[in-house]
Amino acid sequence: MSNKRINFQNKFSLFSEQWAPRVIAELNDYQFKLAKLEGEFVWHKHDHTDEAFIVLEGQLKIELRDGCIELSEGEMYVVQKGVEHKPVAEAEVKVMIVEPKNVINTGDAEQGERTAQNDIWV
Amino acid sequence: MSNKRINFQNKFSLFSEQWAPRVIAELNDYQFKLAKLEGEFVWHKHDHTDEAFIVLEGQLKIELRDGCIELSEGEMYVVQKGVEHKPVAEAEVKVMIVEPKNVINTGDAEQGERTAQNDIWV
Repeated sequence: MSNKRINFQNKFSLFSEQWAPRVIAELNDYQFKLAKLEGEFVWHKHDHTDEAFIVLEGQLKIELRDGCIELSEGEMYVVQKGVEHKPVAEAEVKVMIVEPKNVINTGDAEQGERTAQNDIWV
Repeated sequence: MSNKRINFQNKFSLFSEQWAPRVIAELNDYQFKLAKLEGEFVWHKHDHTDEAFIVLEGQLKIELRDGCIELSEGEMYVVQKGVEHKPVAEAEVKVMIVEPKNVINTGDAEQGERTAQNDIWV
């Protein structure tokens, strides 16, 4: 059974692409994803779900229309459904995202270069 | 908005009771809970949900009927629904648990001293 233990550092070592979340586990109809982010995402919202960001290494800003959440390692934030947000990382940050399956990462924004394919496991 | 940032170390500093999960965030109808565990839990299963364990500090064993998952800091494991398991910690371990709201921590086991009250926030 020990091969089902999930080690974050090991998983991060297996991919280098940024803004391309990798699924590491499922919990009912939810997924845990790891991602490496650097630079600016696009403003977007998810009308049907909250989205949890957990910082595992580095620093992440989540810009909101009425403020900015600054997260360091060992911190998390839940963006509530319908709330516009834009993740920004001045240097590469390693995060875990928890959300339902099949959520489009760019939400209601026009799909573009930041739109990632779902269900890519690592 | 910065007061909505959740810092795990800060949250852990606010309680000392073991086997008493504290809710730190909600994601739709799911909850993120922090818990301090030491010693043995009871064998149990959850017939209607998976359960995620993320180790934030220390070491956790999750005994299964067909093996044992040993988790250290930076590792996680999802116990699938219906699977009997028993968490064991030789020394205090700090974990995050992710599961739906209203799950009884002792599952199908007879309720006893390890059965915790739900919806206690920290």
